[in-house]
Amino acid sequence: MQFQLTNDFIEKIEGLISQKDGNALRELLHEYHFADIAELLEELNSDEATYLVKLLETDITSEALMELDDDVREKILDRLSPKEIANELEEMDTDDAADIIAELDDHIQKEVIQKIKDQEHAADIVELLTYDEDTAGALMAKELVQVKETWTVAGCVREMRRQAENVTRVHSIYVTDKEGKLKGRLSLKDLLTASEKTKISEIYIPKVDYVTVHTENEDVARIMQKYDLEAIPVVDENGILVGRITIDDILDFIKDEAEKDYQMAAGISQDVEADDSLWKLTKARLPWLMIGMLGGLGAASIISGFDSIFLSHPNLLLFVPLIQATAGNVGVQSSAIVVQGLANDTIKGHIIRRLLKESVLALINGICIAIVVLVISHFIFGTTYSESISICIALISVIIMAALIGTFVPILLDRNGIDPAVATGPFITTSNDVFGILTYFLIAKLILGF
Amino acid sequence: MQFQLTNDFIEKIEGLISQKDGNALRELLHEYHFADIAELLEELNSDEATYLVKLLETDITSEALMELDDDVREKILDRLSPKEIANELEEMDTDDAADIIAELDDHIQKEVIQKIKDQEHAADIVELLTYDEDTAGALMAKELVQVKETWTVAGCVREMRRQAENVTRVHSIYVTDKEGKLKGRLSLKDLLTASEKTKISEIYIPKVDYVTVHTENEDVARIMQKYDLEAIPVVDENGILVGRITIDDILDFIKDEAEKDYQMAAGISQDVEADDSLWKLTKARLPWLMIGMLGGLGAASIISGFDSIFLSHPNLLLFVPLIQATAGNVGVQSSAIVVQGLANDTIKGHIIRRLLKESVLALINGICIAIVVLVISHFIFGTTYSESISICIALISVIIMAALIGTFVPILLDRNGIDPAVATGPFITTSNDVFGILTYFLIAKLILGF
Repeated sequence: MQFQLTNDFIEKIEGLISQKDGNALRELLHEYHFADIAELLEELNSDEATYLVKLLETDITSEALMELDDDVREKILDRLSPKEIANELEEMDTDDAADIIAELDDHIQKEVIQKIKDQEHAADIVELLTYDEDTAGALMAKELVQVKETWTVAGCVREMRRQAENVTRVHSIYVTDKEGKLKGRLSLKDLLTASEKTKISEIYIPKVDYVTVHTENEDVARIMQKYDLEAIPVVDENGILVGRITIDDILDFIKDEAEKDYQMAAGISQDVEADDSLWKLTKARLPWLMIGMLGGLGAASIISGFDSIFLSHPNLLLFVPLIQATAGNVGVQSSAIVVQGLANDTIKGHIIRRLLKESVLALINGICIAIVVLVISHFIFGTTYSESISICIALISVIIMAALIGTFVPILLDRNGIDPAVATGPFITTSNDVFGILTYFLIAKLILGF
Repeated sequence: MQFQLTNDFIEKIEGLISQKDGNALRELLHEYHFADIAELLEELNSDEATYLVKLLETDITSEALMELDDDVREKILDRLSPKEIANELEEMDTDDAADIIAELDDHIQKEVIQKIKDQEHAADIVELLTYDEDTAGALMAKELVQVKETWTVAGCVREMRRQAENVTRVHSIYVTDKEGKLKGRLSLKDLLTASEKTKISEIYIPKVDYVTVHTENEDVARIMQKYDLEAIPVVDENGILVGRITIDDILDFIKDEAEKDYQMAAGISQDVEADDSLWKLTKARLPWLMIGMLGGLGAASIISGFDSIFLSHPNLLLFVPLIQATAGNVGVQSSAIVVQGLANDTIKGHIIRRLLKESVLALINGICIAIVVLVISHFIFGTTYSESISICIALISVIIMAALIGTFVPILLDRNGIDPAVATGPFITTSNDVFGILTYFLIAKLILGF
């Protein structure tokens, strides 16, 4: 059942496109799933892809467009007329259509919306565009199956058939009062087993989880995951049912968040992929390397400040990389655990207790490493006893300091409403590098007195 | 609607538990969702939590147990008798029940299974336990709604009512032939609109995505995401429908994988949380710090090998942290992009082209950084022209080398069936540290001839 995009297949398609053989292409691609069509579009150049999008049925291409990488989609949309874009939007769920509109240039947005034939669909899309990004209002779709509590089961089934036309998958049947206020939900099982004349008000489940249009995506994701929901209804300020969010939207959100955190930890500031342009990749990577460079220059000026060490204890300079690497590694470990804990909402209790625990942990790790370094530095690198002891005390101090910075900074950022993930990666590594090297030389100076 | 676990509430519960006031507790907790009960259990000590699990209805506690952190659940299960565990399993879906059984000690497993009253449920669980971990067989549940192609719509609705008893949520209705071979699926909409006497064979959709019991979890996740599936049927070697996997299982899998990758990148080797014991945290973190330490000692021996530099060009030693930090940062960036691309299946094309692109990117970044360093090193740190040029050429070389290692190693591991994520974090940083410092001194020696 698995679709494999081969080079032969792509070449065949490209050949047919260059011959403008629309019939053969339609014939050939007729059976394919929209996700496979999307994969194919990603492999073609923008003109070829646009040709296919114009050629194939909009019920396939509208779904395929949603699966594309943003860059690829943008190039195709640029080549479509407002009318052609409107035709695609006609087939999309309102949430997807609103996302596409939001990607277009301002002056085209209006024209595209005017060209949508289905007035209700267009109005729904415009409504979705009014909500703040990152809130349930912007994430939800207007498509849902809604029944009134005053209806009978028979009327309800009739109405559901009608509404189901517009809804790809029936996740839940929501029950409202006459004004449209959310009252509860109806289980399919109860609907199947109740007699035709039963009133919905007698069989619906009055307990239902919901969010408001202003609930942040992060909270929607947390609630849906905690309560294992596959869909959640969205209400406005007055409790009126206005939309629903499904688990696949949340899955995308969770994946994006995880990728963002991962990239931040790796020092990549934008959502980039290996296939992006050199310019985009440079913009995402260079700023972090510059931060690292400033740290490196900071370390250089610290070392030059302790220049008497070059004559009195040159051996100490050998261990600068060790101090720096350890400080960096410990800092990243500590911050990663805290950032992940904050994302999963498992960081509770007092900050002091957490810092204390982290210190003890750092002390254990520090002593283990220091013992090995003590032996090796003295017997292999020929440092004096007092030099070795300075190195080890500095190492333990640096580990504790790095662990505390790595733990404290993300928590502090989080409490101030800043994404704690920015504290991971080069940022924490660089500050730990600088503080680590400073601590190292200060302790050495204190003990050895140079 | 949001549940907030307050300290007052926890204290109240603890008080009632210590008074063994079962009625008051049942009364108080009656209305709560299982996910909220799970949150409460995590805050109690093991004896208190066990008391509650024994006290409350198994339809709630069985679900709550599944939500718990592994450690917490293990401690509660340890305190339950095989009969009590069997009662909980009775209420669970087969996939969850099998997961719980797999967590128990071998000698208890058999006893618990024997104590399950529902013979069919027990047999289903035993079947699930036979599949390899990380395959669809171990991930699937046996609960599904299955109809035969020879049935009529009326018979189908009757049968569905019966089957729906055991299925919490109806995701899809699967159609099989008389032998149980998967033939297709039935849409709820078609079932609602068809006349009672219509044969299922006339209205079912013969195209259905499926996986076999041996398909790996990773592939299941990829297929379900690519084709936007909320559930996928699982067949055995003979095409017989044996189970189904739902999107929430995949969501858990995807989250776990993302967390694992993130932790590996941060140098944490096991799945740990901030609240785990010191011993567990040390085991997860110390090995990586030891790798970093070996790298640091390696760097120390490289520097001591170039000891003439201490007299001839001591200024070069100031820039060791800069070289090291840059090498580490570039390596992590490159490897993170590749690892993420491999996870998302977007790394295609020839490896040579990818390495070439990475080199060009590294060259651009390298030149930008080198220019800044050239100016600052000469005018602020007073290095000679030839020293500054050595530093900058070394810096660019080190950046290119680190980018190539960061790109090449994950791809190499992936092609050999090893999780490329192990290449990120301390592993790549450490090797880049060592190679970076070696490259730095070699280039300096070549240019300055000390």
